Amino acid sequence: MARKNAFYGQSGGVSAVINASACGVLETARRHSAEIGKVYAGRNGIIGALTEDLIDTSLEPDASIAALKHTPGGAFGSCRYKLKSLHEQRAQYERLIDVFRAHDIGFFFYNGGGDSQDTAHKVSQLGAELGYPIAGIGIPKTVDNDLAVTDCSPGFGSMAKYLATSLREAAFDLMAMSRTSTKVFVLEVMGRHAGWTTAACALAAEHEDDAPHLLLLPEVAFDEGRFLDKVEQALARYGHCVIAVSEGLKRADGAFFAASEVQDAFGHSQLGGVAPLLTNLIGARLGCRCHWAVPDYLQRSARHIASRTDVEQAYAVGCAAVEFAAAGRSGVMPAIRRLSDSPYRWDIVEAPLSEVANREKLLPAEFISADGFGITEAARRYLAPLIAGEAYPPYKDGLPDYVKLQNAPVPKKLAREFAV
Amino acid sequence: MARKNAFYGQSGGVSAVINASACGVLETARRHSAEIGKVYAGRNGIIGALTEDLIDTSLEPDASIAALKHTPGGAFGSCRYKLKSLHEQRAQYERLIDVFRAHDIGFFFYNGGGDSQDTAHKVSQLGAELGYPIAGIGIPKTVDNDLAVTDCSPGFGSMAKYLATSLREAAFDLMAMSRTSTKVFVLEVMGRHAGWTTAACALAAEHEDDAPHLLLLPEVAFDEGRFLDKVEQALARYGHCVIAVSEGLKRADGAFFAASEVQDAFGHSQLGGVAPLLTNLIGARLGCRCHWAVPDYLQRSARHIASRTDVEQAYAVGCAAVEFAAAGRSGVMPAIRRLSDSPYRWDIVEAPLSEVANREKLLPAEFISADGFGITEAARRYLAPLIAGEAYPPYKDGLPDYVKLQNAPVPKKLAREFAV
Repeated sequence: MARKNAFYGQSGGVSAVINASACGVLETARRHSAEIGKVYAGRNGIIGALTEDLIDTSLEPDASIAALKHTPGGAFGSCRYKLKSLHEQRAQYERLIDVFRAHDIGFFFYNGGGDSQDTAHKVSQLGAELGYPIAGIGIPKTVDNDLAVTDCSPGFGSMAKYLATSLREAAFDLMAMSRTSTKVFVLEVMGRHAGWTTAACALAAEHEDDAPHLLLLPEVAFDEGRFLDKVEQALARYGHCVIAVSEGLKRADGAFFAASEVQDAFGHSQLGGVAPLLTNLIGARLGCRCHWAVPDYLQRSARHIASRTDVEQAYAVGCAAVEFAAAGRSGVMPAIRRLSDSPYRWDIVEAPLSEVANREKLLPAEFISADGFGITEAARRYLAPLIAGEAYPPYKDGLPDYVKLQNAPVPKKLAREFAV
Repeated sequence: MARKNAFYGQSGGVSAVINASACGVLETARRHSAEIGKVYAGRNGIIGALTEDLIDTSLEPDASIAALKHTPGGAFGSCRYKLKSLHEQRAQYERLIDVFRAHDIGFFFYNGGGDSQDTAHKVSQLGAELGYPIAGIGIPKTVDNDLAVTDCSPGFGSMAKYLATSLREAAFDLMAMSRTSTKVFVLEVMGRHAGWTTAACALAAEHEDDAPHLLLLPEVAFDEGRFLDKVEQALARYGHCVIAVSEGLKRADGAFFAASEVQDAFGHSQLGGVAPLLTNLIGARLGCRCHWAVPDYLQRSARHIASRTDVEQAYAVGCAAVEFAAAGRSGVMPAIRRLSDSPYRWDIVEAPLSEVANREKLLPAEFISADGFGITEAARRYLAPLIAGEAYPPYKDGLPDYVKLQNAPVPKKLAREFAV
């Protein structure tokens, strides 16, 4: 096998640990210099490939690459950009081949969720379809945990740990205040279709009385009457009520709860999230004071409270992707396989991209409690190991010391520009 | 001095470290058994005193008391309840004396903000006014940092560290996404009148280009035109813009920005916070995609990322309060005095409650940058040491291991109930 350069791209919403995967890719590639030359990162993922906007990672010192393991965000820039099929947009694929050929790229690593695995899959087919053989390898990443085949997705465990920790802390606050002030606290969780992230909030509870008292999962249609009954029961029993709600909560007709008639002073709809709407509903019907939180990006970038398990898995899938490529594999993604719950043991196996791309793994029915407002013991067994262990970043002047790479561009070789 | 029991109460919004002050009070009182008998905590602060709802802290094992140092919230329950003057509500003061006398209480420790220092002050005057001598000692606590006399207030440093860390992390996320998706991120910060907490967000920036690019302080009237110009400039220069805004942002006429005409689907106003309103404004005028976060209680209860300096100060003021009392002092509060910025050195001095009660310390003009959208170097020198150092709680099963006390009630001795 002739030595070839590699392309690495980050795609979709970023996470606290996608850079740990990048670290795994880059460190492993440096050890495989017989097969892999330079690793060029796409500035903003596949957009960097299409526009020939490549970053020369070989110019980054080892210490900076190592620091990626504790740095959140996407060090090379991410993108929300989906390649259409070859038949629909042949020009894009031909452009990719032009760029890959110009920079002698024979390996394509794409780090993202279901859409990104689809991109990796399409690139892996460039040899058969258009005569440019390239190893296309996906690297799993999604805080939503909705990727198929892999037991869990890097990024999820850290967000789950952030959410469960934050909810536990806020519940301690609420318990102190509820006698004379706030009685209900609502935490809004990212994850539009799959309920994994909202389910993870339940880990905050050690005992039956502990918060959260109610989960509102996107897999369970919202029923206002049943919900308010449950809130009233919790208030009667505990004197306060803590709720975790998915941003993707749906009504019985399938419409998003948050896509309401809300208008702001400027006449624009879709002002707020689900949490403020829910607290307004509770306040109006039950007459109690409520607080709500929408942590938004904070929850998926909270590297300061990352799960050690998650960091290790994110790093491991990055390493494995390069090992797969160096071993001549293509059209695959390193998937995490669970060997046991407790003690938690896992390894990495090869998943065909065709089985991962464009699929969505929702919370299974057996993980949702009978009343729909909580999770089962089976879910708890699944979730618990994913938040285990701490992996603190280094601190400087009281703040996490995250790295910003130089991200020096690779000189362009193509005369033609390409608009995306 | 005859040995007397003590009362300890938590008041106002709780924090990540008010229990560290409680720990200081209880541990120090246990060492002063010659002067101080049992410490009775008020369940929900002064309400517990008025209703004779006392908690016998002597029943808690040392390990539980020690664990308060790393537990957020208010372990004995807090309250939002302000004692009126003796002339307005003499019955309340007579009731307090009845309860104190019944339980042989000669020391009153009250842990809270400006209102709470007023309560401690009023209780310290019970001897002169109503012939029941009692040592009234205040203990400073407020995430808002708006207490007078003391250089800083326990609770603030940890919230500042949480905010600066979270904003830095979210900015890393935004930088990765801004090419194809979100360009503006707005973080809403608690603190209705004083801008200390919003100012602390500026610590996230190491270099001039770093986020946050704009602060909206409650001390500076909001000017829509100037604000939008600044956002446009940041977008042109950095490709993205991060804003920290105080929940107490005001318009030029003094009205709260968030007290708008917003109505939700149920016809109720005051749906959201400032952040969603601001992002709607930016989206409408500048046409770019925005995200916003409202961490609410998360920011003041985030013990997992507490400032070690803050924890040490919270503990120290608790200890000092008891030392003051044991030395026969009354009508005072332990205040933090800054001896130098760098290296940061501080000690504790005695502040008369009359100078602390009911005052509010706003961000001084020399801490606000000339354009009103940032802070000065002087502010940075003041703020920086307050977030220094980490003080991680212990973890169990991937989550912070916080203590819940037994909070066993002291048997009531009074026949009469008292309604609050």
